[in-house]
Amino acid sequence: MINAEIKKMIVDIVGEENFDDSKVGRLTYSYDATPDMQSMPDAVVSPRNTKEISELVKICNEYKIPIVPRGTGTNLCGGTCPTEGGIVFLFKHMNKILELDLENLTMTVQPGVITLDIINMAEANGLFYPPDPGSMKSSTIGGNISENSGGLRGLKYGVTRDYVMGLEIVLANGDIIRTGGKLAKDVAGYDLTRLYVGAEGTLGIITEAILKLVPKPETKKTMLALYEDLEAAARTVSKIIANRIIPATLEFLDQPTIAAVEDYVKIGLPTEAKAVLLIEQDGSPEQVDRDILKIEEICKSEQAVSVQVAKTTEEAEALTTARRWALSAIARIKPTTILEDATVPRSEIARMVRAINEIGAKYNLQICTFGHSGDGNLHPTVPTDARNREEMERVEKAFEEIFIKAVEFGGTITGEHGVGVMKAPYLELKLGEAGIAAMKAIKAGLDPNNIMNPGKMFAKDTRKRVVVGK
Amino acid sequence: MINAEIKKMIVDIVGEENFDDSKVGRLTYSYDATPDMQSMPDAVVSPRNTKEISELVKICNEYKIPIVPRGTGTNLCGGTCPTEGGIVFLFKHMNKILELDLENLTMTVQPGVITLDIINMAEANGLFYPPDPGSMKSSTIGGNISENSGGLRGLKYGVTRDYVMGLEIVLANGDIIRTGGKLAKDVAGYDLTRLYVGAEGTLGIITEAILKLVPKPETKKTMLALYEDLEAAARTVSKIIANRIIPATLEFLDQPTIAAVEDYVKIGLPTEAKAVLLIEQDGSPEQVDRDILKIEEICKSEQAVSVQVAKTTEEAEALTTARRWALSAIARIKPTTILEDATVPRSEIARMVRAINEIGAKYNLQICTFGHSGDGNLHPTVPTDARNREEMERVEKAFEEIFIKAVEFGGTITGEHGVGVMKAPYLELKLGEAGIAAMKAIKAGLDPNNIMNPGKMFAKDTRKRVVVGK
Repeated sequence: MINAEIKKMIVDIVGEENFDDSKVGRLTYSYDATPDMQSMPDAVVSPRNTKEISELVKICNEYKIPIVPRGTGTNLCGGTCPTEGGIVFLFKHMNKILELDLENLTMTVQPGVITLDIINMAEANGLFYPPDPGSMKSSTIGGNISENSGGLRGLKYGVTRDYVMGLEIVLANGDIIRTGGKLAKDVAGYDLTRLYVGAEGTLGIITEAILKLVPKPETKKTMLALYEDLEAAARTVSKIIANRIIPATLEFLDQPTIAAVEDYVKIGLPTEAKAVLLIEQDGSPEQVDRDILKIEEICKSEQAVSVQVAKTTEEAEALTTARRWALSAIARIKPTTILEDATVPRSEIARMVRAINEIGAKYNLQICTFGHSGDGNLHPTVPTDARNREEMERVEKAFEEIFIKAVEFGGTITGEHGVGVMKAPYLELKLGEAGIAAMKAIKAGLDPNNIMNPGKMFAKDTRKRVVVGK
Repeated sequence: MINAEIKKMIVDIVGEENFDDSKVGRLTYSYDATPDMQSMPDAVVSPRNTKEISELVKICNEYKIPIVPRGTGTNLCGGTCPTEGGIVFLFKHMNKILELDLENLTMTVQPGVITLDIINMAEANGLFYPPDPGSMKSSTIGGNISENSGGLRGLKYGVTRDYVMGLEIVLANGDIIRTGGKLAKDVAGYDLTRLYVGAEGTLGIITEAILKLVPKPETKKTMLALYEDLEAAARTVSKIIANRIIPATLEFLDQPTIAAVEDYVKIGLPTEAKAVLLIEQDGSPEQVDRDILKIEEICKSEQAVSVQVAKTTEEAEALTTARRWALSAIARIKPTTILEDATVPRSEIARMVRAINEIGAKYNLQICTFGHSGDGNLHPTVPTDARNREEMERVEKAFEEIFIKAVEFGGTITGEHGVGVMKAPYLELKLGEAGIAAMKAIKAGLDPNNIMNPGKMFAKDTRKRVVVGK
């Protein structure tokens, strides 16, 4: 709890205007994009710089006050829901692109910068920041780093982790450290940079990041292939890779998703198609032409019922419509949308989609599946209603089975959404008891008072998707 | 110490033939490739599988016996020198390529596999494993992973870290865990995979690894440019990158290195040239042609006195001769060769080479510098004589100043060689006290009895390059 004395100390650091413990202020930050999750923080602060964060953290560490670092709260795992109260840290004052270094091809940013601004700034300079999470228009880079966000370009370009070269971090004791640098190679000690990428704010607060940029691909082509058979689509994916082609994007939509999209945007998608593949390749014009031609051949050889290659940017935009609107279209079906991201090796996609469908039937749930087939990252999505507790229980059971299957197929419980609160009960499925113990040892070493985003990553009990309230 | 009782327990696990505590056996593993470093282990074991390793580790943990995991000992940081005695673990029985998965583009290997065998196996299947440390013909993948080895292709393709997707690890308590998988995306918990890459055997023993492969580039071209001016060579490097070209290889040799090479292999290098750049590009034929043409233009515009593009594979081989023989040529000059790997942001290379030369003059030392200019990873190399203690002291002082300069220029004390014993006294330069404390907290959490390669990474005192003996 934050008593008057602690409040005064905090206000002395950040100023009145950057401290909020009003009911409305706290309510605003009591939830994030995760459906059916809410818990009130004790206060919300907006520090103006790293030094202020360090001072605030020292106070929180002394008084054992939970800290929840929060960008724009677009995560889907309850990662920024203040389940144990405490103080939500906002980064609205720390939202600058500090430097674009054209010689070293790096961009140095504060955590509050919007992801899309980074992408746009890079592209305006002939460069490329590949990670493109679905939330990139509103998510912050601090959140992307803490969640190790993925996106549609993961197969060819990797994820956020692969583009973070160095960090400034405020540790749980308030110490400020710098990891890495503008360095392609650095083996001085443990790789703290990558340990903090994806640590979900549980090990410290990221206050600055050096991002790696790459040259912008010269050109890009887009194509769409429709299938009457899920297996054929999966075989196409495998065959593309077997031909040593790594497309920039290789996305998949199943039949229920196609139907939902068509119902929403009415672009003439055949709603009886069992699968759609959206494929993009980028690079030099000759390479792109050659790859797209070969991919077209492969799609046809695998009985795609229709293969369209966009001739113009407008046509390409049109082809990506189905994929882009997938989540919004599904979200229209019922009041609550539960979107997960069970992930399997690429070779197991068809098996996984079949398993998902069987589980959906077993629990009498509509499951729409779409996602990144190139990297095995699937998004089984259930339109439901949080008020219908009986159905929500079935949803929980279905997802538990989906996670078990994913791990059984050599996959993982989360490819890009993070563990947070939602997946914490399932983490042991993937890591085993010994793996969890190893992670807890790291957590205890770096945050002995458990003030950094407590209640996330490690499950206290088997509590799942429930309203916490406070 | 290993008494008769402990010895019996160990022999019961691995068999007589896989335990060696003879004087000769211990002497053989009392040193590695690091000059002027030696310390006797108490015994050497060769476990046959992960289960045996787990059982051995449990004994070592109980009796607090140091464990030194060792591949072929090619590291240059004393990383496998048993400075605190204990047991050297060899992987001669765990040297199999377990699987090549053409659908997921992965290779699963045991730690004792020779790096070049992995590269060759990948290439024979139209695939590519890019990390190519200088020692690849004799180093093992377990060592590469534990040191996060780099190589000549780091600029474009990254380092070992970027190609490790999952690990099997025996923890200090003997528990066996599996991290990651055949997954491009996995955010289930902390990134233990990358934490163990480059952990130098101080956090556990790697017993299996899933490596990522990429399609083999279609073609490659090689060129060599000579300069009368170091700055012009450095400007060329910057200008290539500024033109949004990322060559596969972008290597640099300074004048003393060129002279040493010419003296050795007599291939007609102009020994008065101040710098040589070896540049390679790979990819699709059109892209490579275009890039090489552009690079040629840039070299000429920066007053390269000679630019040669290889027309055949044989010519390409000839051009790479100078770079390939650099270390051997320098090693001929005096009995001891001290090779370091101070690394700076690419933009600081010219400044760093100038600083190295000034430091060499100050301490009256011949320093030959070559390395990976594309990624700022330089190898200042001193031919010396370990028996000349007075000169060795000057060498130590010179390198200390070089490391200080590297960090001052935004660089690091080691780009690819690791910390081990040799760089431990300098680690604080890069990480500060708080950074070291964070790393020690991780070490204490995961290896509370400090049995895993003790004495490495963290300095006990300021002892540097001295014969330890025992």
